[in-house]
Amino acid sequence: MSIQIPRGTQDILPGEVEKWQFVEDTAKEICRTYQYKEIRTPIFEHTELFQKGVGDTTDIVQKEMYTFEDRGGRSLTLRPEGTASVVRSFTQHKMFGQPNQPVKLFYNGPMFRYERPQAGRFRQFVQFGVEALGSEDPAIDAEVISLAMTLYKKLGLKSLKLVINSLGDKESRISHRTALINHFQPRIEEFCSDCQNRLEKNPLRILDCKKDRDHELMKSAPSILDYLNNESKTYFDKVLLYLKELGIEYEVDPTLVRGLDYYNHTAFEIMSSAEGFGAITTLCGGGRYNGLVQEMGGPETPGIGFALSIERLLAALEAENIQLPYENPVDCFIVALGEEAKLKAAVLLQQLRQHSFSADMDYLDRKMKAQFKAADRVHAKYVAILGEDELQKRIINLKNMETGEQKEVAITDFVNQFIQLSK
Amino acid sequence: MSIQIPRGTQDILPGEVEKWQFVEDTAKEICRTYQYKEIRTPIFEHTELFQKGVGDTTDIVQKEMYTFEDRGGRSLTLRPEGTASVVRSFTQHKMFGQPNQPVKLFYNGPMFRYERPQAGRFRQFVQFGVEALGSEDPAIDAEVISLAMTLYKKLGLKSLKLVINSLGDKESRISHRTALINHFQPRIEEFCSDCQNRLEKNPLRILDCKKDRDHELMKSAPSILDYLNNESKTYFDKVLLYLKELGIEYEVDPTLVRGLDYYNHTAFEIMSSAEGFGAITTLCGGGRYNGLVQEMGGPETPGIGFALSIERLLAALEAENIQLPYENPVDCFIVALGEEAKLKAAVLLQQLRQHSFSADMDYLDRKMKAQFKAADRVHAKYVAILGEDELQKRIINLKNMETGEQKEVAITDFVNQFIQLSK
Repeated sequence: MSIQIPRGTQDILPGEVEKWQFVEDTAKEICRTYQYKEIRTPIFEHTELFQKGVGDTTDIVQKEMYTFEDRGGRSLTLRPEGTASVVRSFTQHKMFGQPNQPVKLFYNGPMFRYERPQAGRFRQFVQFGVEALGSEDPAIDAEVISLAMTLYKKLGLKSLKLVINSLGDKESRISHRTALINHFQPRIEEFCSDCQNRLEKNPLRILDCKKDRDHELMKSAPSILDYLNNESKTYFDKVLLYLKELGIEYEVDPTLVRGLDYYNHTAFEIMSSAEGFGAITTLCGGGRYNGLVQEMGGPETPGIGFALSIERLLAALEAENIQLPYENPVDCFIVALGEEAKLKAAVLLQQLRQHSFSADMDYLDRKMKAQFKAADRVHAKYVAILGEDELQKRIINLKNMETGEQKEVAITDFVNQFIQLSK
Repeated sequence: MSIQIPRGTQDILPGEVEKWQFVEDTAKEICRTYQYKEIRTPIFEHTELFQKGVGDTTDIVQKEMYTFEDRGGRSLTLRPEGTASVVRSFTQHKMFGQPNQPVKLFYNGPMFRYERPQAGRFRQFVQFGVEALGSEDPAIDAEVISLAMTLYKKLGLKSLKLVINSLGDKESRISHRTALINHFQPRIEEFCSDCQNRLEKNPLRILDCKKDRDHELMKSAPSILDYLNNESKTYFDKVLLYLKELGIEYEVDPTLVRGLDYYNHTAFEIMSSAEGFGAITTLCGGGRYNGLVQEMGGPETPGIGFALSIERLLAALEAENIQLPYENPVDCFIVALGEEAKLKAAVLLQQLRQHSFSADMDYLDRKMKAQFKAADRVHAKYVAILGEDELQKRIINLKNMETGEQKEVAITDFVNQFIQLSK
């Protein structure tokens, strides 16, 4: 029995990988126009980073991390998400001191969570995300949201829904926190043990609980929007105004929360409302985290970002039946017959490739007919035939596979002629 | 004290990341012309895969792997190299049965080895590699070598040296193995304990030993080239002939070995001979491994490939003082003053970006002068000024930062005008 791929992971093979390349190239191109620059952080970090940066009380940290000791006894963890690493890097490299502010970054790479594998959910998955650090301007909240929406729309998605909320500033959150505790405390025994733990530590996360979501106290829970102070309310209104000006429709949902203490103000999700996309409809989640850089040991620095899964993006494209443009044809396939012809063909291939043509030949010493079949299968635009006859006459028979036209070309002039033909 | 990056790993930040992007994009473009398609395999695999596919007796498997148990008790290992994973994937997905043969693949991604960190050597590093599976044709050995050389040359490297050897087929290797055992056995006590272990298991690896490399028996060791049977010799000669035709200079080095049983025939390395590049001069290593697919549980299938480290490639470029072309200027920076102007600017930014221009504005509510400075720092080609005056007159002042020319444009016509100007 051969060795198989680990459970919950996948190979991305030719035929499928082109979709990934297209989506990622599109995301990178959009980042160029928005002036977000790439950052690459390691696949693993000190475990402590995620305990601090994602939060000790989260499912991710408690149940889903790939944590191990390296040969030097350090506790390392495969990154379960991207923001903590980016903020660690921002702090370590003192980017808060750079002249260009805000610092606008994007990342794209694998993340790891030990979850129960199911359709569309993997233990290794790819996240694309952006972080804008150093500005607390409603305009940049809107810019970050606009960047995500632009990506989805550019790829052709139509059934999109932007849901947005404000978690307010520290003051607003403290009043809301007290209201939440007062609301749940009297009947907290009716909730799951996780929620009982959350009541004092982080009552906001009760609203996020999957087990207790149908409890009657959930619906009647105090809404954060009723506890926003003036400053927070003004900030939120401005974000919504920018979205309106940018033509981005939204729905305010006061139950949308991010349960960590250093998240504040804007929180948003983009969902797919495409039929048949399945139960988990969230494509992208993001929000403002003005306390996180400080939590990581840096100076007080505002920040906002989002992360989206490429797997879910591709699933949404499929649900909406969107075909990505994909082309990778062979410009010229050389049918070479005999050892001498093959040697010559190898040289011509090299020259064609140097001129940016994609070119290939047969490496199985097949007969002419089989080589033509191979050229057909890769949708070669031209087939160049170089057999013993041609070699003797020092020519190549060049056939346009679309028109069927065929012409003789001197071997020495072949590459030049090919360049001319392809203009 | 803030949390730091794990030892032996690095962040790749804007300003540096552009070099990586350029090198990787170049590699991918060359793969397109050679018709090698991307494959992505998981970051971790079952530990067994590398024990089998890299080899139990290697330093990598014995000393350098990041191995851990997941929450389900499986032994997983962060991939220390790429070939084993690609061959596992090729076998698992039965690619040997695909109509298009050989299957030509490339990969690019992080690999992990727990080594002593030193200049240019990291515990997480990036490898780019190709594998051609399904053909045993000297032409494809040459193609694989040519692909690597093309990448280095296209990036501008000049001080390159290709070293090549043949390990022969199974029969040749068995006779050579016997000769090696006979050669070392009488004085094996003078060698390190690793080598003593290798004598029976894998005597070829003695030639690779870093500790014993100066022992007098090393120089006089029987050369594989004297033990090649006719078939192997013919194969090697043909590979060399192809290289000659392709204009690729080489040096035959009979001490160049790859110590695993399923490696055979062609083995090669590309080194940098640039001054000041340091002691480790190998940029790229590759070879033929006709036994590996079978070892992984698939049918007998020939294969050849190489892997190169992007870190070492970048170091070689630096040693040769080669500057990569890098441009990411801001096409238009909008200097907006006041809330209303900013709202308007956000909309104009979005429109410019939709037309593929890179565009930005200030998100720190700075004064005009500071905003101009910010525009300067990002080398903005144009600055568009939108203050209260302009807003009232419904115009924008557009300044070409190169020529200093300035003109008034109606806000409603701004994006059109900008497109015209940039043609």
